[in-house]
Amino acid sequence: MRAIEPATLTARVLGGESRAVARAVSLVENAGGQLRELMAALAPHTGGARVIGLTGSPGVGKSTSTSALVSALRRRGERVGVLAVDPSSPFTGGALLGDRVRMQHHAADPGVFIRSMASRGHLGGLSWATPHALRVLDAAGFETILVETVGVGQAEVDIAAHADTTVVLLAPGMGDGVQAAKAGVVEIADVFAVNKADREGAHATARELRQVVSQVPRAPGQWRPPVVSTVAAHEQGIDDLLAALDEHDTHLTISGERERRRLARAREEVEAIAMSALRERLARPLRPGAADLAELAQQVATARIDPYTAADRLLDTLG
Amino acid sequence: MRAIEPATLTARVLGGESRAVARAVSLVENAGGQLRELMAALAPHTGGARVIGLTGSPGVGKSTSTSALVSALRRRGERVGVLAVDPSSPFTGGALLGDRVRMQHHAADPGVFIRSMASRGHLGGLSWATPHALRVLDAAGFETILVETVGVGQAEVDIAAHADTTVVLLAPGMGDGVQAAKAGVVEIADVFAVNKADREGAHATARELRQVVSQVPRAPGQWRPPVVSTVAAHEQGIDDLLAALDEHDTHLTISGERERRRLARAREEVEAIAMSALRERLARPLRPGAADLAELAQQVATARIDPYTAADRLLDTLG
Repeated sequence: MRAIEPATLTARVLGGESRAVARAVSLVENAGGQLRELMAALAPHTGGARVIGLTGSPGVGKSTSTSALVSALRRRGERVGVLAVDPSSPFTGGALLGDRVRMQHHAADPGVFIRSMASRGHLGGLSWATPHALRVLDAAGFETILVETVGVGQAEVDIAAHADTTVVLLAPGMGDGVQAAKAGVVEIADVFAVNKADREGAHATARELRQVVSQVPRAPGQWRPPVVSTVAAHEQGIDDLLAALDEHDTHLTISGERERRRLARAREEVEAIAMSALRERLARPLRPGAADLAELAQQVATARIDPYTAADRLLDTLG
Repeated sequence: MRAIEPATLTARVLGGESRAVARAVSLVENAGGQLRELMAALAPHTGGARVIGLTGSPGVGKSTSTSALVSALRRRGERVGVLAVDPSSPFTGGALLGDRVRMQHHAADPGVFIRSMASRGHLGGLSWATPHALRVLDAAGFETILVETVGVGQAEVDIAAHADTTVVLLAPGMGDGVQAAKAGVVEIADVFAVNKADREGAHATARELRQVVSQVPRAPGQWRPPVVSTVAAHEQGIDDLLAALDEHDTHLTISGERERRRLARAREEVEAIAMSALRERLARPLRPGAADLAELAQQVATARIDPYTAADRLLDTLG
């Protein structure tokens, strides 16, 4: 990769050039030296994009649904970004997600940007790589950004924290209605999509889900997640899904919920950057003669001091 | 739960009283006010236990294998602690893991302590709850502690960071040999167990795994993970598994690897406690008039400043 001036890169990203966007996302992934400068330059140009998270167990059809949504949004004339985040991939440099075969017919479309990302970050969850990449696509003028994550548990919660709207996908015959209730995804879903709705048991799954959703107590004016049935492989029900997304978007505006979510997202991003900086400081304390982490860990490992006392001494080196 | 003096609780834990151990683990889970004092009091009594991590995909027979190992270790006269950690459970207060039916016949045995834990911790992974609980069981005199975790990816890496020996369980016919290689579990396994070895494809899975293992370059004297075949439900192959664990234990001693692993574990624990304290400080800066996280997040959310500048200002409030 040839060197490129941050100012030039910024200008090209703001111009929506695909190659510049790809390079900026790489900078985010690798936490390169010019990342800070790029983020500062892009910041004033963010806030315009709508971020939609899609999550669900393996096999429910996330990539197919994402691809169908991309087609539908393109027909509206929107520019669409897609980030496929793999939270279970600590080793691979690239991510395993993002069914490239399905996405292939969008790859040649200059109005679509597709990127797979591994979720790194010692701080857990999506870390700052995903919010930063969202920032890049946002500044590059993509009207809608779809973030696809496979996951159970924490990954789903994290995606909900970064999206304006979270779609939880399910498929019939996986006992997903009850599973969803157990796993707590009911709390994070703004829209449910029962995909593969042409299969046996689809009606039962949708009914079960609606029942679970209806049992959650809600204040007046609070959003109740609709349950949409789709057959994404045949692009069936995608207009219904899009309508549900738009309805939620309107709700976000009217209720003030969008601001609340974006504030929470910004808070997490700032916190993650600050914590990352602090972790680095803790690893190499600046004051000479002060106890360092390696030495304190040695004392804890040999049962000479307890971990809390060690943590206190470590924190003293910061002040 | 009646109040109990920390000194009394410490004495009872050190005496190996099951109810006191259970109470101490609850204190760990809930991060109660006396946690610090308890950890300090227990610290000098730790370091004696051997920690064995067991991990693998759902359905490979982790609980059955854990239960069979407990039986085998009990026959040797060892006291055994079992922690079943569920890393995918951010919502439920209790953990979903730990097949209580299989474990039930150990429950009445005073030489066995069994506990399911949800993995919390905003810092990701097993956080400090698991290392703290290990510390409690260690001080309580359990010779071997088995930590069972379901997981792909990060959870497996985390368990490896906390165990002296990590067992990766697989079952035939799940394409697990290649899967394991892809998912990077080869890097963390000290011992492989192909469970359900009476099923079709078990030989192929074991052979495939041995091939994958043999292809990893190793320095002279470096450990090469053995592949053991088991039918845990019938307690077959458990003695072979135990022999492999003992062999690895000897290797840990001779190579100095045990000290390295325990140092890394202590380092993570101290770091997690320090980071947790810092996160709390960042949420409530002490200096009056200083920018706080909520205010800075507001400025980032409205695109007035970038997240790095916000993080810098936040960090200024610490110093």
